[in-house]
Amino acid sequence: MRPRFLSKYILKCPRCGFETEASPYVMRCPRCGELLDALLIADRVRLNWGGLRGRGVWRYRELLPEPGNTVTMGEGATPLIRLRGHGNAYVKFEGANPTGSFKDRGMTVGVSLALSIGVKGVIVASTGNTAASAAAYAARAGLECLVVLPKGGVAKGKLGQAMLHGAKIAEVPGTFDNALEYVLEAVLSDGRVNNVNYYPLNSINPWRLEGQKTIAYEIVEEIGVPDYVFVPVGNGGNIYAIWKGFRELVDFGVIDRVPKMIGVQASGAAPMVRYWRGLGEARIDNPRTVASAIRIGRPINWFRAYRAVKYSGGEFIEVSDDEILMAQRMLGREGIGVEPASAASLAGYLKALGEGMVDAGDKVVLIATGHALKDPDTLLMNSNVNMVSVSSLDELRSLIVAQEPGI
Amino acid sequence: MRPRFLSKYILKCPRCGFETEASPYVMRCPRCGELLDALLIADRVRLNWGGLRGRGVWRYRELLPEPGNTVTMGEGATPLIRLRGHGNAYVKFEGANPTGSFKDRGMTVGVSLALSIGVKGVIVASTGNTAASAAAYAARAGLECLVVLPKGGVAKGKLGQAMLHGAKIAEVPGTFDNALEYVLEAVLSDGRVNNVNYYPLNSINPWRLEGQKTIAYEIVEEIGVPDYVFVPVGNGGNIYAIWKGFRELVDFGVIDRVPKMIGVQASGAAPMVRYWRGLGEARIDNPRTVASAIRIGRPINWFRAYRAVKYSGGEFIEVSDDEILMAQRMLGREGIGVEPASAASLAGYLKALGEGMVDAGDKVVLIATGHALKDPDTLLMNSNVNMVSVSSLDELRSLIVAQEPGI
Repeated sequence: MRPRFLSKYILKCPRCGFETEASPYVMRCPRCGELLDALLIADRVRLNWGGLRGRGVWRYRELLPEPGNTVTMGEGATPLIRLRGHGNAYVKFEGANPTGSFKDRGMTVGVSLALSIGVKGVIVASTGNTAASAAAYAARAGLECLVVLPKGGVAKGKLGQAMLHGAKIAEVPGTFDNALEYVLEAVLSDGRVNNVNYYPLNSINPWRLEGQKTIAYEIVEEIGVPDYVFVPVGNGGNIYAIWKGFRELVDFGVIDRVPKMIGVQASGAAPMVRYWRGLGEARIDNPRTVASAIRIGRPINWFRAYRAVKYSGGEFIEVSDDEILMAQRMLGREGIGVEPASAASLAGYLKALGEGMVDAGDKVVLIATGHALKDPDTLLMNSNVNMVSVSSLDELRSLIVAQEPGI
Repeated sequence: MRPRFLSKYILKCPRCGFETEASPYVMRCPRCGELLDALLIADRVRLNWGGLRGRGVWRYRELLPEPGNTVTMGEGATPLIRLRGHGNAYVKFEGANPTGSFKDRGMTVGVSLALSIGVKGVIVASTGNTAASAAAYAARAGLECLVVLPKGGVAKGKLGQAMLHGAKIAEVPGTFDNALEYVLEAVLSDGRVNNVNYYPLNSINPWRLEGQKTIAYEIVEEIGVPDYVFVPVGNGGNIYAIWKGFRELVDFGVIDRVPKMIGVQASGAAPMVRYWRGLGEARIDNPRTVASAIRIGRPINWFRAYRAVKYSGGEFIEVSDDEILMAQRMLGREGIGVEPASAASLAGYLKALGEGMVDAGDKVVLIATGHALKDPDTLLMNSNVNMVSVSSLDELRSLIVAQEPGI
């Protein structure tokens, strides 16, 4: 049965073309098993792009599911910050969301939907940001939250958030991929949600991704269509969601083209790059990178991410941990504090500039997915310590004048 | 000489009435030594309240200094989140600012001004949030930043931010009060800035506070005038700035009254409560509280804070560390992640409710000054750990069904 708040949607298989009515419970194609796309039915959408009201994700409610209960904390409407020294590039700073990452855009939609269909709680596997966000929005909704995490693989800040927001935490051995496998096995049967207690809000869930696509809408409202959008790719949901957002605005006649989507992965966790280059399946074992938020070896949304890049004329590229850490420091020196995974965007852009893949004049948006404070240990490890002890006023005075010899 | 971008202001002493033309360099009254107020000259302001454009701090540029260089990262426009279970109360969530605290509102104005007058860098004493924000905005502006911190008194996240953004850090023994004393001694002479290298951006600086007053403007635009505003009080600048924002809107005829301003301090660092109760000067030695952001014994803005509370018909109250930590957990269970100092607002509100000082029906805004991620150690310490190890799919399945005995 299709809830009324999904009546402007249809579910469609991008592989075999199977179509079915929108449902919160159906995730995979019953014919071929592919993850289904949630597609807007054009003549059921009344879009007045010039007359949008409000701020953040729900400013675009005409293009979103509209559950009766809206669980919101002002997510979205994040800053788009122009870089000083690097061509025509902007950073979309998702760290300014309530829990400090872009996941909040998805969770406001996903948890609203979960609340509206009357489940007891939500469940997610996570490298950390999804856990923090799911925990916060579930708490806000009065729902339970069960987060399944790779033991030892989650940055400290994110773990603290999940606990502060009252989530139940299940640690599993291995990587995020193992955690996600457990969750999907536990709650899905034949690609349908089989558990009435805990509704899954990983990025297989197309309704959560609907929230994340608003990143594209905000970019278009602020600077029009960029030439390139660089997105860190872990599980592959976000690059797909952002591309889908641009696609829809083309379909509705708001813009006339989509930007080239560039998926950036860490070298030690680059299954999409592997697949893109024709070197085998989009999966690797034992993903390793300092960027824990994209430390994923078997991206569940690999076909979604692939389509986003392929159909936009983009590319998958990889960057080393050193390049990621350098990019984190560079952004820091521009005043922008991001976690390592976010810095992959800038690292990828610098690489693309160096290789002539993009020009300095191209209009580029770098998606910075999460806040520097999410991972305090890496933050401290990756900063140049410039610290002195001062025990008298004269010592402080000497610091101030010593900077300018000759005075 | 008054820069043109300050031409709509005058500096006035709130104690002896002395007036002088606006200057970035004059902080104290040359007659009596009191900190000067930066006051708008009504007939030089062209305010069209209904026709404001843009978002965040600079949406209110008509009511702010307008330096030629604007150093901005989309600060302000923070969520106002209604609490579920506590009367008619809203949380103004300043953790959603770029560096995770309300300080960014002040720094965008202060650093823009510093850049426009041509200094080499900025200097601040800080319990941490000011350091993080000053470092980020100075980096953005291409200015140097020297932060003076109490050794061992700064939460880990904030220290990491200051380092990431390239600040030079000087640690001094003792408390924040010692650090601030050093800074003011080093850069002021007779209440004037004497150092052409490093411009001071502590809250003695009235131009920085101009940015912070926009909290009041945003509240009014979103929900009108509250009955009460609860503000954590450390150095006392923010409660004054917010009150000043409301006052100005009364002066310009936008609203007809100011809310009662309630200053909340931690019991172990409550010099304003002491003074308010007539127990002596607004100073204590050895301030102690888990809320490091308000661990201040000698609030430099004590007279500003006093006036905000006094003239608004408000009150200073104190709450224990236990109450603060409980309030942090309560906000967490509503989905809102704040650092301990921020939770003082809710702790104070609960106390005021309990004592009948406010009614459950009163419209109340609680200022949440900084993000939970700012202080990861307290975050982890203050969370109920609800964690299990799961090593098989069956164990995870049992977690999901065990929640609902009888099925």
